[in-house]
Amino acid sequence: MASLDTTVELIAAPDEGCAAAAQRAFDAKTKPRGSLGRLEELARQVAAIRRQPLPGPEPAAVVVVAGDHGIAEEGVSAYPQEVTAQMLANFAGGGAAISVLARAAGARLVVVDAGVRGDVRIEGVLDRRLGPGTANAARGPAMPRALAVRALETGIELAGELVSDGVGLLALGDMGIGNTAVSSAVAACLLGRDPEEVVGRGTGIDDDGLRAKVTAVRRALEVSAPDPADPVGVLAAVGGFEHGVLAGLALGAAASHVPVVLDGVIVGSAALLAARIAPAARAAMIASHLSPEPAHALVLADLGLEPLLDLRMRLGEGSGAALGLQLVNAALLLLREMATFEGAGVTDAGA
Amino acid sequence: MASLDTTVELIAAPDEGCAAAAQRAFDAKTKPRGSLGRLEELARQVAAIRRQPLPGPEPAAVVVVAGDHGIAEEGVSAYPQEVTAQMLANFAGGGAAISVLARAAGARLVVVDAGVRGDVRIEGVLDRRLGPGTANAARGPAMPRALAVRALETGIELAGELVSDGVGLLALGDMGIGNTAVSSAVAACLLGRDPEEVVGRGTGIDDDGLRAKVTAVRRALEVSAPDPADPVGVLAAVGGFEHGVLAGLALGAAASHVPVVLDGVIVGSAALLAARIAPAARAAMIASHLSPEPAHALVLADLGLEPLLDLRMRLGEGSGAALGLQLVNAALLLLREMATFEGAGVTDAGA
Repeated sequence: MASLDTTVELIAAPDEGCAAAAQRAFDAKTKPRGSLGRLEELARQVAAIRRQPLPGPEPAAVVVVAGDHGIAEEGVSAYPQEVTAQMLANFAGGGAAISVLARAAGARLVVVDAGVRGDVRIEGVLDRRLGPGTANAARGPAMPRALAVRALETGIELAGELVSDGVGLLALGDMGIGNTAVSSAVAACLLGRDPEEVVGRGTGIDDDGLRAKVTAVRRALEVSAPDPADPVGVLAAVGGFEHGVLAGLALGAAASHVPVVLDGVIVGSAALLAARIAPAARAAMIASHLSPEPAHALVLADLGLEPLLDLRMRLGEGSGAALGLQLVNAALLLLREMATFEGAGVTDAGA
Repeated sequence: MASLDTTVELIAAPDEGCAAAAQRAFDAKTKPRGSLGRLEELARQVAAIRRQPLPGPEPAAVVVVAGDHGIAEEGVSAYPQEVTAQMLANFAGGGAAISVLARAAGARLVVVDAGVRGDVRIEGVLDRRLGPGTANAARGPAMPRALAVRALETGIELAGELVSDGVGLLALGDMGIGNTAVSSAVAACLLGRDPEEVVGRGTGIDDDGLRAKVTAVRRALEVSAPDPADPVGVLAAVGGFEHGVLAGLALGAAASHVPVVLDGVIVGSAALLAARIAPAARAAMIASHLSPEPAHALVLADLGLEPLLDLRMRLGEGSGAALGLQLVNAALLLLREMATFEGAGVTDAGA
């Protein structure tokens, strides 16, 4: 298994020469310069990450990582914890939103159990269990530091396996009852925000639930007092297994020159952990959509990312990322398949 | 050919019962209520238009309508007029942006010559020519009123043909050098705005070009002084052949209970004409994206439509509409294919 330190060292700056070459290719295509807007930016970014002047669509995978959270005991979610494992079976069975959206995007769906509660084994789900859910972060660290490192390295290893398998574009998703609370705690700590500023209603809690969630996040940050300058420590103190594995996937993908399409606030907070561990990893990240969770806009601003979509989606699972994948693929198809002014015999006014 | 009047009479109000049934179906799916945001709204809207409680994806067509414009003589575009016909050949040849994006959306591309300059016939392009381009609207009416009606009825007829062919979802696009100027004139007249407020840089004119464009639009509105309460008169005075055919397509689709995905400012101004002719046609319209052309946001606000995407695209051709099509299809696939809480054995907290 590649160690965390080795992987961080492998993450190179994007190749701006390839980005410029992709833009030159677009500028010769039959359309006014720049008129495809953000699709041209996306193609440039993928060119720079992949270090290819003319990147095309490559096999994509949506990786959904699931975990359970001790903090769910504090009443931070509208759903009982058993739903995490039930939804894993639903992902694998093809009936969840992300099952449908991954199919629509032509992407392979990889479902990962990073540690749901109980000793469940679900057919079609990758077993990468780090434990039967984390400890209750409102009462002590969510996991030992060594397990946080193992979670990150589990994600790094998985990214390596997928890349070896030919995956050239990664979309990330999550599942885990209570994981917006966990994500809010991670974001509050890393961004120096008060829990009131970052906690939202998640899948749909009421006012009492919202108060309980703010209180739980505040307690978690007080009881372990993680140091924002130590992202691995933050993950261990208040994070989740899926956050660790997702951050590891983002680091591993960046080290392998593979672009990573982010989802909402859970994947966003994991991406923030990855970026604090290795700032160069940010260049490989693409923000698919904006979630209504208050922490998400703050996380994206810190990462310097502008979301492609704002459809008021708040489901998680990688549902926004799968839609983002379609836009990335459209951008790459345009770069590859559009005719040039010269080839098509169209007069180029140079506009 | 169905007359304009008959078609307008056929446009019925959307079936809100079907929209409610679609929402009930979504509420039984394995996800928190409403968590798919605008995708759920899209599915509800399609249910109401099609008058089906559980609409699925149906064959889609992207119809790109092209015309030339006498007003191009006033120097309103960065490109020469010959580009309109050259681009028609490029659409049909598969090398234009919309050729690529229609393929990516799994949609049939229908390219229509509504009247480009010269007497060109292009293989793979539907001949629905209303003339060799319009007259220069800055010097007199763009077309006689009878031709404006014929343009509308040409679109209505084409919509009928496509629906008979099994098309259940229509995306509209345009091509025509000078047609952002024309669209600005239509929008300025129908919305009671000064040309300064609605004219933009189109495919990329400089400051001198922008001044010439504002002047040309102002002259066009002064010379014919169309009555905003008479949309057919506005089309005849300052419109284009593609605007008439596109408005007719929107009317014909609405009369056939087929949703229409709009593109940028050109299709938007045609949709505004359609909505002024038959206000009930608005219910069948879906705004795909927001163009940076200043008229577009004003047109969408008047139509009461919120764009799905804002990717700073300013190409036309139906490029935004083709991306919007993918989102509509995703919404319909989710409605059709997602499992229910009961079917998947997932605990429903009712959130």
